[in-house]
Amino acid sequence: MSSEATHQARPQQQRAARTRMQILEAAAAAFAAHGYDGVSLNEVIRRSGLTKGAFYHHFASRDELALATFRYKQQQLIEQMAQAVDLDMPPLERLAALLRRRARLLTRDRSLFVVVRLGIELSMRHGPGSEYATFTDLPLQLFGDIVREGQARGEIRADLKPRPTAETIFAGVLGIDQAALLTPNQRDLPRRTDWLLDVLVRGLATPTTEEAS
Amino acid sequence: MSSEATHQARPQQQRAARTRMQILEAAAAAFAAHGYDGVSLNEVIRRSGLTKGAFYHHFASRDELALATFRYKQQQLIEQMAQAVDLDMPPLERLAALLRRRARLLTRDRSLFVVVRLGIELSMRHGPGSEYATFTDLPLQLFGDIVREGQARGEIRADLKPRPTAETIFAGVLGIDQAALLTPNQRDLPRRTDWLLDVLVRGLATPTTEEAS
Repeated sequence: MSSEATHQARPQQQRAARTRMQILEAAAAAFAAHGYDGVSLNEVIRRSGLTKGAFYHHFASRDELALATFRYKQQQLIEQMAQAVDLDMPPLERLAALLRRRARLLTRDRSLFVVVRLGIELSMRHGPGSEYATFTDLPLQLFGDIVREGQARGEIRADLKPRPTAETIFAGVLGIDQAALLTPNQRDLPRRTDWLLDVLVRGLATPTTEEAS
Repeated sequence: MSSEATHQARPQQQRAARTRMQILEAAAAAFAAHGYDGVSLNEVIRRSGLTKGAFYHHFASRDELALATFRYKQQQLIEQMAQAVDLDMPPLERLAALLRRRARLLTRDRSLFVVVRLGIELSMRHGPGSEYATFTDLPLQLFGDIVREGQARGEIRADLKPRPTAETIFAGVLGIDQAALLTPNQRDLPRRTDWLLDVLVRGLATPTTEEAS
């Protein structure tokens, strides 16, 4: 590619990335409100203001759009969770801060809740070996790193294996998410998170002499 | 109703109950294999060997059938879990035995797995205030009773509230179920159950001096 062509491509690429993000925001709102089956691709296209041709250039099917929407909002959620903590916090305290922040974000920002609802639907639709199945690596790495660091600092039980323990933490989170689907507006996620942390933190922590007295 | 009418009604009621059970078994196999959306009511009717009229006498819609199938298999699962324990077992040991048994049952009996798959689908379809939402009372009572008994025996932390703690135990179970959807044939449910119990039992137990040494 000539230097001139590269110069022309840049604004085009930026425009394409901006369009993609607008589509994903519109799709997130739609999937969060109506679920996978309730979203019509034509409706998302109409709201995006794009022609069908321009839209299909970005996403060829509802399934592709749903996967990209999940991934986009999952990354956004994890980035926003990270703003609640700094790396000086002891690992178990950081875990608690991350999960509490997660609950508040999901309760306040309806478009982030797509991570819960679409996540469950994609789990059932895609299953083992799918691209979607690899998306759970992101939270599992986050929790696995906390476990490893907690163990290095003697704060988390040395007998726990980091990856299985990350799976258990993530299971607790997925479970309260699912329970929250049965409560109006998922309002009790912060409360359920506190209940989970009450058992989880004690279950992970290295026992201290004071505790046992 | 005259005594004669009662006599005539009994075999009819028994026959109706037997037919209902046959329908529910066929429906459980279908929902477990194909999920809510993948099951055609006509196909279940065909397999039941009943006329449409006779079938609709029992279940008026796919939704009604799905709710009844979930409930029927949920009760069966909990009854079969209970066979793994006796009431002499200390509460935390009983909890572990129940959850390990649950994992084995769900892995071995495909028709019981409908409790996981249909449970998730009904959570999303029915939501807050629905009849389905009340179905979570059964496992929550089971876990709540264990927590209360464990506290009465000094085995489970006195600072935990029974109902919220039952919700947390159930969340862990729901979470590993959902993660198992992403593994082939849900084969790793027993392993995930062990990982969960490793953290859960320590999180619930009253700390002992030995532990802290």
